[in-house]
Amino acid sequence: MIGYPTKKTNVLQTSAAEALKVDARLSHMGRGMTLESDINASNDYYIEIDRALIHKKPTPIQVVRVDYPKRSSAKIVEAYYKTPSTTDYNGIYRGKAIDFEAKETKNRTSFTFKAIHPHQIKHLEKVLLHGGIGFVIIRFTCLNETYLLDAAYVIDAYNNETKKSLTIQEIRAHGSLIREGLTPRLNYLDNVDELYFMEDKNGK
Amino acid sequence: MIGYPTKKTNVLQTSAAEALKVDARLSHMGRGMTLESDINASNDYYIEIDRALIHKKPTPIQVVRVDYPKRSSAKIVEAYYKTPSTTDYNGIYRGKAIDFEAKETKNRTSFTFKAIHPHQIKHLEKVLLHGGIGFVIIRFTCLNETYLLDAAYVIDAYNNETKKSLTIQEIRAHGSLIREGLTPRLNYLDNVDELYFMEDKNGK
Repeated sequence: MIGYPTKKTNVLQTSAAEALKVDARLSHMGRGMTLESDINASNDYYIEIDRALIHKKPTPIQVVRVDYPKRSSAKIVEAYYKTPSTTDYNGIYRGKAIDFEAKETKNRTSFTFKAIHPHQIKHLEKVLLHGGIGFVIIRFTCLNETYLLDAAYVIDAYNNETKKSLTIQEIRAHGSLIREGLTPRLNYLDNVDELYFMEDKNGK
Repeated sequence: MIGYPTKKTNVLQTSAAEALKVDARLSHMGRGMTLESDINASNDYYIEIDRALIHKKPTPIQVVRVDYPKRSSAKIVEAYYKTPSTTDYNGIYRGKAIDFEAKETKNRTSFTFKAIHPHQIKHLEKVLLHGGIGFVIIRFTCLNETYLLDAAYVIDAYNNETKKSLTIQEIRAHGSLIREGLTPRLNYLDNVDELYFMEDKNGK
């Protein structure tokens, strides 16, 4: 197979890169859509039409020092990113608690588990324990494919010590391809309807 | 009535003071418990014993500039507090989505609606619309009393244009007093059980 010299196949979302996310988001603004901005726009649309109430949680930041140049305005001058203890998105859909994490990768063949924090897996386990709907959205940016994977499947694979990643074949087989469009950009609630609200489908 | 010269009766939580919250929290550390730290400790306990999965959302911060003194560490050197678009707490309890806001006041006679953002009320309206459990926790710090008020009651009062606040009498009559202790510090899920999971009680 011939490589693409201008494209890197490294995975973007290692644990260390987490801290750069907000930064990257700002610098990418207007230069093409990220998974996060697609999900946020979709959630805004879902809220507007009263289909669901799902938000991204703010990135956790430890504030150390704040200046007050004007009485009314606070300027943070020293702060650090903290490791998130939960997933990025949660809310309510059709009376159920919804909770999920979203990750994108530039890799074309697999999704590495290094991109998910152990405490995010623990969090998803607790989401299922308490009766919520949990899943992971994974986008392969170079393939233009975005999948929704049930949390139970991801947790099982993650806790299998011999597995370090999910291959694209596994994700295609066990995940649900998300339809992309204009509004919403990512119609992932249709996948949620199919997976969690149709009892006869997919054996769930 | 004789005033207390060393105690102010101003309400702490006006819209402008929102930005100072994190700051205040840091400077109060170790000098007595705030409502927020009580709720966070209670939620940690509830998570530990697998009773519920409820977290405080991080304070939303707009990051403008980041330095990288070392390759591995990002230092935020310019950032600003953003107005939150949702309530502070949400999660899952007994299979239901839970969503609430918490406020404390130094006032002894009433709780002003100025302390709640209009979009937080809109958010609570949507929580109810989508089938979640919504409420507001209000602590009167000088009275040592903390109440849980159903979102529907708070929304109705808030949307009543002639009402600018809830009196302590109204809160005592319509709210549910939260028992305080050691673990959990604020046993608010017992109030949730009474209000939302016992059909014959309180006419709900």
